[in-house]
Amino acid sequence: MGPGSVGFALKERQKVSNIGEFGLIERFAARIGASPKGETWAGDDAAVLRSPGSTLLYTTDLLVEAVDFDMGYASGADIGWKALAVNVSDVAAMGGRPHHAVVGLGLGDDCLVETADGILDGLLAAASRWDVQLVGGDISRASALVLYVALIGVAEAEPVRRSGARPGDAICVTGALGGAAGGLALLRGDAAVEASARRRLVARQLRPEARLEEGRRLAALGATAMIDVSDGLIGDLLHLLDASETGCVVVPEEVPVDPDLIPLREVLDPIEAALTGGEDFELLFTLADDTVPQARASLAELGTPVTRIGATQEGSRFLGDRPLSAAKEVGWDHLRAR
Amino acid sequence: MGPGSVGFALKERQKVSNIGEFGLIERFAARIGASPKGETWAGDDAAVLRSPGSTLLYTTDLLVEAVDFDMGYASGADIGWKALAVNVSDVAAMGGRPHHAVVGLGLGDDCLVETADGILDGLLAAASRWDVQLVGGDISRASALVLYVALIGVAEAEPVRRSGARPGDAICVTGALGGAAGGLALLRGDAAVEASARRRLVARQLRPEARLEEGRRLAALGATAMIDVSDGLIGDLLHLLDASETGCVVVPEEVPVDPDLIPLREVLDPIEAALTGGEDFELLFTLADDTVPQARASLAELGTPVTRIGATQEGSRFLGDRPLSAAKEVGWDHLRAR
Repeated sequence: MGPGSVGFALKERQKVSNIGEFGLIERFAARIGASPKGETWAGDDAAVLRSPGSTLLYTTDLLVEAVDFDMGYASGADIGWKALAVNVSDVAAMGGRPHHAVVGLGLGDDCLVETADGILDGLLAAASRWDVQLVGGDISRASALVLYVALIGVAEAEPVRRSGARPGDAICVTGALGGAAGGLALLRGDAAVEASARRRLVARQLRPEARLEEGRRLAALGATAMIDVSDGLIGDLLHLLDASETGCVVVPEEVPVDPDLIPLREVLDPIEAALTGGEDFELLFTLADDTVPQARASLAELGTPVTRIGATQEGSRFLGDRPLSAAKEVGWDHLRAR
Repeated sequence: MGPGSVGFALKERQKVSNIGEFGLIERFAARIGASPKGETWAGDDAAVLRSPGSTLLYTTDLLVEAVDFDMGYASGADIGWKALAVNVSDVAAMGGRPHHAVVGLGLGDDCLVETADGILDGLLAAASRWDVQLVGGDISRASALVLYVALIGVAEAEPVRRSGARPGDAICVTGALGGAAGGLALLRGDAAVEASARRRLVARQLRPEARLEEGRRLAALGATAMIDVSDGLIGDLLHLLDASETGCVVVPEEVPVDPDLIPLREVLDPIEAALTGGEDFELLFTLADDTVPQARASLAELGTPVTRIGATQEGSRFLGDRPLSAAKEVGWDHLRAR
């Protein structure tokens, strides 16, 4: 930040309607950078890329203002970071590596250029974090802010699908759960905690990490099925069990609860948050039971705990002594009327 | 349409909030169909694909209600068709072939399930038309309807970029221009024409064709630069000239005007519509002057006219005897305040 930064910042308080779609595209293209010989990124009808491998992974996620984030508490950079992180998390849950992303942005006429620039800041920070190259995109006017990323990745080994769990596999999860829901409660002003716990919980909501290296190591160790925890542990476990056509016994007491939730327990039940909160972007996976110690040791090198929360079985699905399906309806479903 | 179709149709008049995000995703996944061995389409964290080639093309376009379409005159199927067609057109303008698409959809709670199903009808119809496979996507709540497609294609030969025009090349365009703008004027009720002309003009606006086979043939014939006419002839020509760092002389009388615009001339200047109307999705390209007859003959086999509208040159840019830049500001710019 040099002496000119104040004048620069003031200049950026113009609205996107003042510089137009093409003005904004030029700003974005300039920051995407120069493509290597043989590739063409922004600035043509389509990006030209060398294929990163023979088996591609392809995913997209859409974030909508007032549904997936609130401009009252999320900055442009937060939104940009999260839009890329949630896509990287999808590639992580296949055991793959992300490569090339396109981005789409719908902006109101009154949106400030500095908000649009902030979104790109967040996208580029996350892209740098996980070695993703932004190669193009589209910008349109919109009544509410919408942001999406579509991400191409590569599977170096066989991708880990949701459908490979066999009865008798251990069910495990990385990290701790419920923190993103706790961060949301804090941002909404429903609760208060001391500063360092607040910082960690809010970061879980606004700046999620994707468990990318963890996913690759779990794939190499032979994880039989994997999914990222975006809708909530129960909801995502049901997706995995449905795809694998198998039952389970999960021990609720074994589910790793984010310890920062404890001081919040009068406004948010920590177990409930861990089971259904969603957006933690931890990896939920199944694995041969005797490989769990190896998985735990390998991910410990990354500072990431692995917790065995139960096992798959033929037939019924239990959470403790209750049918898992009884808990299904409390999952994270954007569209269902609440 | 069997005897049960009325009951079926009535049942479909429920709102998307009644069936929820996952209910809608299941409906979509069921219609995407089964993936071949080794691939996985909908139903996992990311789609798993065999790479279609060593050089990929990657593009995306976002359509927003009340900006890019109006639900007062566009059906769900129209919107779905157009969202895919405009992406295919981008791949066509590189001389490539489209392969795999992901789709994102933001829907209001009050959106009817039949509208969402209609969008998928249109997407699948366009996908079938151009041999594209839908392999996944995302659905969210939103205040206005938003729809995007991200499309992976392949370049079998060297992609035709915007940047390859050399001074002395012929500047050519496929088909006729201005029809999409004429269709929009009719849909908005600004004008009336006889039924068959109306049908053709409205189709140019709501059901655009991508010049896919034309693009591949022009690439094979050595087109030096190419772009699709989405922003309007002048705007897209400027994009091409900027990328190629070259000037031009374009003869306005040579620009092929959609003949259906003639009866509309009291409300819409046909030349103005052809120069600046946008969304015609014809191909604008440059080519060695002595190859124009071959291009004309090759595309005549597809029923598509090729018109030489001028030539590139060193230095200045002219439209007739006026600087081309004087016409720049009337291009199609979604964000610029009008």
